[in-house]
Amino acid sequence: MLSSIFAIVPVTSLLALTFAFIFFRQMMKSSEGTEKMQRIAEHVRKGASAYLRQQYKIVIIVFIVITIIFSFLAYGLGVQNKWVPFAFITGGAFSGLAGFFGMKAATYASARVANACRTSLNMGLKLAFRSGAVMGLVVVGLVLMDISIWFLVLNHFIEDMAGGYKLMTITAIMLTFGMGASTQALFARVGGGIYTKAADVGADLVGKVEAGIPEDDPRNPATIADNVGDNVGDVAGMGADLFESFAASILATALLGAAAFIHMEDIQLNAVLAPMLIAAVGTLLSIAGVFMVSTREGATQKELLKALGLGVNVSALLIIIASFFILQYLALPNYVGIWGAIVVGLLAGIGIGQSTEYYTASAYRPTQKIAESGNTGPATVIISGVGTGLISASIPLIIIVVAITLAFGFATGFNFGMDSLNVGLYGIGIAAVGMLSTLGITLATDAYGPIADNAGGNAEMSGLGAEVRQRTDALDSLGNTTAATGKGFAIGSAALTALALLASYFEEVRMMFVKILDRPQELINNVPAIDASFYDFVQHYEIHLMNPKVIVGMFLGVMAVFVFSGITMNAVGRAAQKMVDEVRRQFRTIPGIMEGTAEPDYARCVEISTKGAQREMMTPSLIALLIPVVVGLVFGVPGIAGLLTGTITSGFALAIFMANAGGAWDNAKKYVEEGNLGGKGSETHKATVIGDTVGDPFKDTSGPSLNILIKLMVMASVVTVGVAVSYHLL
Amino acid sequence: MLSSIFAIVPVTSLLALTFAFIFFRQMMKSSEGTEKMQRIAEHVRKGASAYLRQQYKIVIIVFIVITIIFSFLAYGLGVQNKWVPFAFITGGAFSGLAGFFGMKAATYASARVANACRTSLNMGLKLAFRSGAVMGLVVVGLVLMDISIWFLVLNHFIEDMAGGYKLMTITAIMLTFGMGASTQALFARVGGGIYTKAADVGADLVGKVEAGIPEDDPRNPATIADNVGDNVGDVAGMGADLFESFAASILATALLGAAAFIHMEDIQLNAVLAPMLIAAVGTLLSIAGVFMVSTREGATQKELLKALGLGVNVSALLIIIASFFILQYLALPNYVGIWGAIVVGLLAGIGIGQSTEYYTASAYRPTQKIAESGNTGPATVIISGVGTGLISASIPLIIIVVAITLAFGFATGFNFGMDSLNVGLYGIGIAAVGMLSTLGITLATDAYGPIADNAGGNAEMSGLGAEVRQRTDALDSLGNTTAATGKGFAIGSAALTALALLASYFEEVRMMFVKILDRPQELINNVPAIDASFYDFVQHYEIHLMNPKVIVGMFLGVMAVFVFSGITMNAVGRAAQKMVDEVRRQFRTIPGIMEGTAEPDYARCVEISTKGAQREMMTPSLIALLIPVVVGLVFGVPGIAGLLTGTITSGFALAIFMANAGGAWDNAKKYVEEGNLGGKGSETHKATVIGDTVGDPFKDTSGPSLNILIKLMVMASVVTVGVAVSYHLL
Repeated sequence: MLSSIFAIVPVTSLLALTFAFIFFRQMMKSSEGTEKMQRIAEHVRKGASAYLRQQYKIVIIVFIVITIIFSFLAYGLGVQNKWVPFAFITGGAFSGLAGFFGMKAATYASARVANACRTSLNMGLKLAFRSGAVMGLVVVGLVLMDISIWFLVLNHFIEDMAGGYKLMTITAIMLTFGMGASTQALFARVGGGIYTKAADVGADLVGKVEAGIPEDDPRNPATIADNVGDNVGDVAGMGADLFESFAASILATALLGAAAFIHMEDIQLNAVLAPMLIAAVGTLLSIAGVFMVSTREGATQKELLKALGLGVNVSALLIIIASFFILQYLALPNYVGIWGAIVVGLLAGIGIGQSTEYYTASAYRPTQKIAESGNTGPATVIISGVGTGLISASIPLIIIVVAITLAFGFATGFNFGMDSLNVGLYGIGIAAVGMLSTLGITLATDAYGPIADNAGGNAEMSGLGAEVRQRTDALDSLGNTTAATGKGFAIGSAALTALALLASYFEEVRMMFVKILDRPQELINNVPAIDASFYDFVQHYEIHLMNPKVIVGMFLGVMAVFVFSGITMNAVGRAAQKMVDEVRRQFRTIPGIMEGTAEPDYARCVEISTKGAQREMMTPSLIALLIPVVVGLVFGVPGIAGLLTGTITSGFALAIFMANAGGAWDNAKKYVEEGNLGGKGSETHKATVIGDTVGDPFKDTSGPSLNILIKLMVMASVVTVGVAVSYHLL
Repeated sequence: MLSSIFAIVPVTSLLALTFAFIFFRQMMKSSEGTEKMQRIAEHVRKGASAYLRQQYKIVIIVFIVITIIFSFLAYGLGVQNKWVPFAFITGGAFSGLAGFFGMKAATYASARVANACRTSLNMGLKLAFRSGAVMGLVVVGLVLMDISIWFLVLNHFIEDMAGGYKLMTITAIMLTFGMGASTQALFARVGGGIYTKAADVGADLVGKVEAGIPEDDPRNPATIADNVGDNVGDVAGMGADLFESFAASILATALLGAAAFIHMEDIQLNAVLAPMLIAAVGTLLSIAGVFMVSTREGATQKELLKALGLGVNVSALLIIIASFFILQYLALPNYVGIWGAIVVGLLAGIGIGQSTEYYTASAYRPTQKIAESGNTGPATVIISGVGTGLISASIPLIIIVVAITLAFGFATGFNFGMDSLNVGLYGIGIAAVGMLSTLGITLATDAYGPIADNAGGNAEMSGLGAEVRQRTDALDSLGNTTAATGKGFAIGSAALTALALLASYFEEVRMMFVKILDRPQELINNVPAIDASFYDFVQHYEIHLMNPKVIVGMFLGVMAVFVFSGITMNAVGRAAQKMVDEVRRQFRTIPGIMEGTAEPDYARCVEISTKGAQREMMTPSLIALLIPVVVGLVFGVPGIAGLLTGTITSGFALAIFMANAGGAWDNAKKYVEEGNLGGKGSETHKATVIGDTVGDPFKDTSGPSLNILIKLMVMASVVTVGVAVSYHLL
């Protein structure tokens, strides 16, 4: 029965992986530079691998435990039951593989990029960007491969059912594949985030503030750990985060499509295929986009940005055009409206990125004002950073609100009645897919940042000439801009993905509801019109806002967000403290370290960050995994409904606040360092350095970890849906 | 028809006001001390009056505008319409009066308390506490008076209706009285909060940090403004906040009672009277409690705390006993369960206060750890304060969750089905009333804090002897502890009150729903069983969590909270900046100021704070008032339902986070000043001073303003319910 057009998905997957391999090979062929450059790169590489090994060890144990528990808890999903553990494990394994390859590429690339910058800026840019593209393409390639395999396997093994029930079942099973990716992402983001900021904060506090030596100075024992951190946090963490968003948005939308068109059997398959095809074609266009990125020698910051932007924007423009024809070909009802939802998703992603840029770049007033408040010391820098960060959440929130309204509206012809609910939710899901469709290239832009940053670090540590450092600085500075928009994009896509997952959760509950009442036939007949069975459903589970269990769930959802952020924040503080002690000890006990005649014990600092991250990531991770189960057990479906909406809404706002406040503090410091308001060494500069340090865990640990939290809590609820439905206490 | 037991309410009101007058007269009779003490007190008094005058001017204009607009928007409530403006205005006027009297008493008391401390600690404590009791008793007295008058008036003028509809109408009209109080409270909290922290931060940054002179030094031009700020922020602001909670919790519960027992006509009146009677008897017990507070000379901090605690705890214990007999007398069905809800409310208030104490007092680990993180500089102080503050939100959130569950459960015999929904919501409302029943004395404890603080300031500025200052310090230090628990109590009661208001909102929508469908008879018959009409209602308005409009509303609710906090935070930053400039200017241009031979221009600083507060309070206030109207106009009832739940849940968490982080930073600094970790003047101390300054707007501006926001947004939605029901766009 499977439409032959589906072949595009596995083929694209192989293509993406092939190009990733080609870019990797090309990069590996270029020279790693001087002996010193190689040694430094080797240090970073070893540290990163050591960390990833440790993290994966823990993750494997967690996976075994969770697989057992969740397989048990998934009881009640009937036919899905036996497939859940396998889907769960492949999701986790593929995400882990993507992180591994991405980080390998990044750590092999840094010295090579620095070396390429000895020849020309263009060569440096191309090499850095294509090394980033390895990560981007591996991520999308592996997601598409996992989807292809599972869809074909399940389609073969799941027996035929009447009334479109088969595709509902297949897509519901496939969704649990996202749970594995979510769990993997949790540890990658939280662990990586703690690692990188413990090293960064520790290195800065002793190196910059106490000893007065510059960033990336080889005399600082924590400097290698800091560079390792960029890779494990920004490359592997960001990759796992978006792996999950990409996978979950496609899978949730497929499920929503299966539910929305359950009564139109030929259309139903096409609705399920649509998100997969759009993601596949977006990937093809991303590959094309990667080849467009290059620049001329001596390019300005603006030209560099334009060079990167060209690839990203052309891919986005082309997917807008291509998706129209895909939907037309699939002949979905109101395909123009559904296409509108895709455009809305893409524009929302760009809009959130732009607003992040506005609130965090030193070219604009908000960041400049924060820098100016440094005139009255660090306290006012913090106050105005927090104030501006809180305000800055409003634009992305409004964008999401408009995006939800328009995506739902376009997909349903602005019929907000319940008879069009399912199609509207499909519209929201496909908007998320649209936003993420060109992830291959946007993720390449993200991964480019830490590679350029590390190249700069390598150039600094190995004492390359001023011209080379100027080039790596240009690349690095560009990386900071792309990092800011990339963060906005990651949060925005997490929110839309979480909403699509939430809708899928309700679909799964509805499937169970019908089963519990022993009337599958009625489901099959009533789902399309949704009204009759729908109000039975709302009435049965009381997922309305007059139910105190819903309100209680919402309070608990907000609590999860606050506690999770607080714990990750404190984790950085504690781990950084250990790093500070160690760096101080080395400065004190290793003779010749400050004169540069003795090498510091880099490995010890790497070990401290690794252990710190390992120890500190357990509690927040357990919270994220356990709360949905506990709330489901006590308050049932209404509790979960409140929990998830509370988590998504407040988590999104807090994530934006933290990312933007942190980014603005960082750039306010850079603004002063550029010679404004007294420049480097002034009191204002010192005040902004404190702001920057405070911002580190905001923007690189707690903020991005919330992306995972809001998706994971929904995924965990989806997987354990049987618990909330069958065993709740109240 | 009116039960004669209702007479207790107006009689108690008069008694409370009489005792307030007696305490005021007693205080005025005691001496204000030396000529210098009088002059300083005069400065503060003038500044406070000048500010209050300015604030009330703005509030009057806003009231005129809002009265016109909201009277128009209240269209659709039918019979209620013509009463709304009057209820609105009396609520605002009475709240304004309470603030005026409370602040008068506080500003007259400070020098007198300082003077009393020249005689004995006990005299100082009694005088300070009874002056605080003026505020406490005026607030509860005026609330009870307004309720008495309106209840009698409306009972007389509203024509009789069948089926308990008359009491529904009366209580619905009376609820709009809370809107006036809410609006007044908004300006008092936001304006007062900005005023006090602009002065405080400004005084600290230049005085303590730059010039190195101590707190409350008369050479600091901003020191009078700082003392004024304590009065306008902590006395008037806190008073208006709790005036509103007290009024709204009683009125909302009365409405919920009228709805819950609409079919049992004799019971219905008793259910409406119950919250009023409990509040009245609680007030009588508060008066008794005030007389219990005294201490022996040379009492330790612990004994002082015990002295205050005795009055508060005995009152609370007695109201638990008394309310049992009140409910028994009123013969409500399941009165033991409803009594259980009252106990839950009281315990929840105590629990939230205790958790605030734990997270902010220097005797416990969280605050000590923040102080210790000062060893690595200010950045780690901020990081660990934010981390701990975020985590600290979890206990109050869990307490609220448990309180909601138990209050609902007790009232309904743990039947969470929809047939007992109305009684359960009544249980939640009456839990809020229970928590606030002894407000007369708890508010006295709150108002005591700034009075003691100002007495200390007066003693310092007028150069009284060391023994006197030691006594005022003891009183002040006690005030800091009560302020922390008071803040927790204010937030907790705001959350429960907001939930009761939310339930009332749904009741009002349901009343309108029935009217719109032209079947009042069906309402009257069906409300008790609630099921049939209830699901019509849920179905008609789609206030369930699968409706994207609800989700959109929730996002906007979270947005309102974040933007409002960000704007108030930045307002303090900006206003403090102006204060810094002015203080620096005076230090530079007034010769002899630092030698103490020339008096600084205190009035200019008072003016700057006044103007700053005036200018800065408009934007956040407009946001709070407009968002519910706009969301109602665009997204209708489901949008409002999402908006309010999003605001309440995230606003509560953010308020706790801000209050606790700010309190912990404050006490971490004090912990170091007590000689720990290097003591005063050490690097650790400097780091914690920065934390303290950052915490100022957290704990005294943005945090407490959120209490108002979460109540006001619901009140504004209640008043404009006709808009959301009749004129929404989508």
